[in-house]
Amino acid sequence: MRAYDIILKKRNGEKLSKEEIYFFVHGFTRGEIPDYQMAAFLMAVYFQGMDDEEVADLTMAMVESGDKVDLSAISGIKVDKHSTGGVGDKTTLVLAPLVAAVGVPVAKMSGRGLGHTGGTLDKLESIAGFNVALSPEEFIKQVNDIGIAVIGQTAKLAPADGKMYALRDVTATVDSLPLIASSIMSKKIAGGADAIVLDVKTGSGAFMKDLEGSIQLAQAMVKIGERVGRETIAVISEMGEPLGFAVGNSLEVKEAIATLKGEGPEDLTELCLTLGGYMVFLARKADTFETGKEMLKEALQSGKAFAKLKEFVKSQGGNVHQIDDPALLPKAQAISQIKAEKEGFVIEVDALKVGLGAMYLGAGRAKKEDKIDHSVGIVLRKKVGDKVLRGDVLAELHYNDEKKLEDAQKIVFAAFKIDSRPPQKAPFIKAVVTSKGVEKYV
Amino acid sequence: MRAYDIILKKRNGEKLSKEEIYFFVHGFTRGEIPDYQMAAFLMAVYFQGMDDEEVADLTMAMVESGDKVDLSAISGIKVDKHSTGGVGDKTTLVLAPLVAAVGVPVAKMSGRGLGHTGGTLDKLESIAGFNVALSPEEFIKQVNDIGIAVIGQTAKLAPADGKMYALRDVTATVDSLPLIASSIMSKKIAGGADAIVLDVKTGSGAFMKDLEGSIQLAQAMVKIGERVGRETIAVISEMGEPLGFAVGNSLEVKEAIATLKGEGPEDLTELCLTLGGYMVFLARKADTFETGKEMLKEALQSGKAFAKLKEFVKSQGGNVHQIDDPALLPKAQAISQIKAEKEGFVIEVDALKVGLGAMYLGAGRAKKEDKIDHSVGIVLRKKVGDKVLRGDVLAELHYNDEKKLEDAQKIVFAAFKIDSRPPQKAPFIKAVVTSKGVEKYV
Repeated sequence: MRAYDIILKKRNGEKLSKEEIYFFVHGFTRGEIPDYQMAAFLMAVYFQGMDDEEVADLTMAMVESGDKVDLSAISGIKVDKHSTGGVGDKTTLVLAPLVAAVGVPVAKMSGRGLGHTGGTLDKLESIAGFNVALSPEEFIKQVNDIGIAVIGQTAKLAPADGKMYALRDVTATVDSLPLIASSIMSKKIAGGADAIVLDVKTGSGAFMKDLEGSIQLAQAMVKIGERVGRETIAVISEMGEPLGFAVGNSLEVKEAIATLKGEGPEDLTELCLTLGGYMVFLARKADTFETGKEMLKEALQSGKAFAKLKEFVKSQGGNVHQIDDPALLPKAQAISQIKAEKEGFVIEVDALKVGLGAMYLGAGRAKKEDKIDHSVGIVLRKKVGDKVLRGDVLAELHYNDEKKLEDAQKIVFAAFKIDSRPPQKAPFIKAVVTSKGVEKYV
Repeated sequence: MRAYDIILKKRNGEKLSKEEIYFFVHGFTRGEIPDYQMAAFLMAVYFQGMDDEEVADLTMAMVESGDKVDLSAISGIKVDKHSTGGVGDKTTLVLAPLVAAVGVPVAKMSGRGLGHTGGTLDKLESIAGFNVALSPEEFIKQVNDIGIAVIGQTAKLAPADGKMYALRDVTATVDSLPLIASSIMSKKIAGGADAIVLDVKTGSGAFMKDLEGSIQLAQAMVKIGERVGRETIAVISEMGEPLGFAVGNSLEVKEAIATLKGEGPEDLTELCLTLGGYMVFLARKADTFETGKEMLKEALQSGKAFAKLKEFVKSQGGNVHQIDDPALLPKAQAISQIKAEKEGFVIEVDALKVGLGAMYLGAGRAKKEDKIDHSVGIVLRKKVGDKVLRGDVLAELHYNDEKKLEDAQKIVFAAFKIDSRPPQKAPFIKAVVTSKGVEKYV
């Protein structure tokens, strides 16, 4: 078998065999197939695509390119969740304790990543003393003891994916459906997931800008799950404006705490209940999605979810006083208000602009080496559909460094569009994709 | 400007500016743009193509990536010829002395290359003492003195092309029209050509298998020539069966000598008169192609062409006795005959199979390091359209090593297809492409 022939075959639009895909991916991972051949291959895949079987083979080739996490010591069905990312996305912070509260085992590995705010690990580290570096044994033990643990990725999961992603990033081959779908799924499967719930964002603030593209991506991932024996459900939700009100690490932890007490923003609560309902269902802790969702609503109202958060934070060395009194979480030195300059209805809050604003303030990383300021960020006071009067506060900027403020003010102000007529409200959850098909709510 | 954005732009089917193409090609040549980005770019070009302006810009970017040969010390219009390569292609051996005999200056740099037989340099080195390593000064002086010199490529012409070709060869991006056209033209232009005649082969033994593809390639090159001020004419000829009868280095020299005496094979003579006619015309030594062709016919008949060959060989240190008496050229120790096993008409002589047979005997190189045996090769005794009886000799294999014979016999025998009905004879010259358009003879 030769790498050249595999590139040629894909370039000519032919279907690759499992053996060919494994040969190419593993040869590349071992450094036997050079970057330039992989780059040409990825571009050929961009143009010619892959069928369902090829995408599943690609996924498993990446899974089997390195270590796999063994969660067999944890009883029950391990359901993992993946979010395609957005601005103000604190879903994991809410979902993990929420589903753990109803008996779904949560053994989650999370990342830091680049972006407008930190990743889940960074957000958790807003809590004093919180330790994300448990040993594999401690990790398993904690899940068995209290049903939940969240740590940083330690094992070399799907190294092929990491190496391929780095190359895609510099060769304009990121936005290829089969490559995105297999990349996401390979990491979840290597992470030990028995079943997967996908939180796919759509809209101007998301990677996928239109609903049809988001549905296609969701379908591609659900089909991979079907083929490799990991039941997968995808929930597609709006990411035009930020999720919830808070954007920034400790600000998002605060919002997550409120949500777990049943006092969270409507969109965030709805998304967590929907994703969580499917997780409970896939973990076989409920017979239907609806029952699962009801169980979670009850956990929010009864205080069980909030209690699970405290148990989780305590077990990983975090300061529980900060959970009981979120005012004790890292706080910025000053707040600057963005005000409306005219009366009307908010018809748009551009998530990307708000995210950039948070990054300007120091909430995120542009480069790997950048340090995050846990305390800074943005709290929206108005969202799409809200009526505003001239002078109303649209958003608050929590900042420590006056020099960083001006740019952030400008871009957050520009994120808001106000019109005399109210916007047409579209449903927040747009569609759900399962192996049975697509259900659209639009 | 970033390499990434240029890849993305081409991937999305947008037109690249001259600045972008130069940035990419020169950055790559200097090693600032890595192989993997060029590989992705080349694959994007394969799928999205390039318009005429982009191809011309790409060509000139490659020309300007290294040294250019300065032929200004030679008076007159320097017309170069390029052949897309085929089996038994001794065109340069005939053409160079032929057009020099009527006053067209020939300052040619040639290659060795890989293939079924050696390149033009290897063929010339069949002649004892022939020196292809003249200094630039000797080269220019010889052209000014006797009107002809052929040497090995010394200067670093179009290094971008060499580097890009090496990458295309391993990333399945060779067969892209804009990439082939710009590669060929860049080397001719960097070699100092004022005008160019292209010998484009078509058919089973050629790179381009069908006439339409060959015409498109020819048009692409003629258009580049037009845009960069080098008048270019392409002659498209059949390469289903080998050109002439001889395949192998000294055997081809013998055939070239006969042709220059007016006693050559019909197809080879016709091709050389046609290509040569256009060279004479482009060099402004004749007002029309037809006049040019007549001048060359006269040079063959009068002995002027043969005399120029001898002058050329003598000037470069070659043994002229071998030209006067070709029996003195390197000769293989033994000859094996391939005979017809049935009666009928030859309807096919597969050029690639004959070429492979010659290579098996030692006439060509599979790897750069391989040594060539100048004396071995194949002489066809029958060509397409010939009637044969059972037992008639189809071809002679000139060999030195008995061990290499069997494989060669098998493949040369398999090259011949004999049928009870004669084949439809198609014209040998299929089309001529100039800046005015395409003239087809089919």
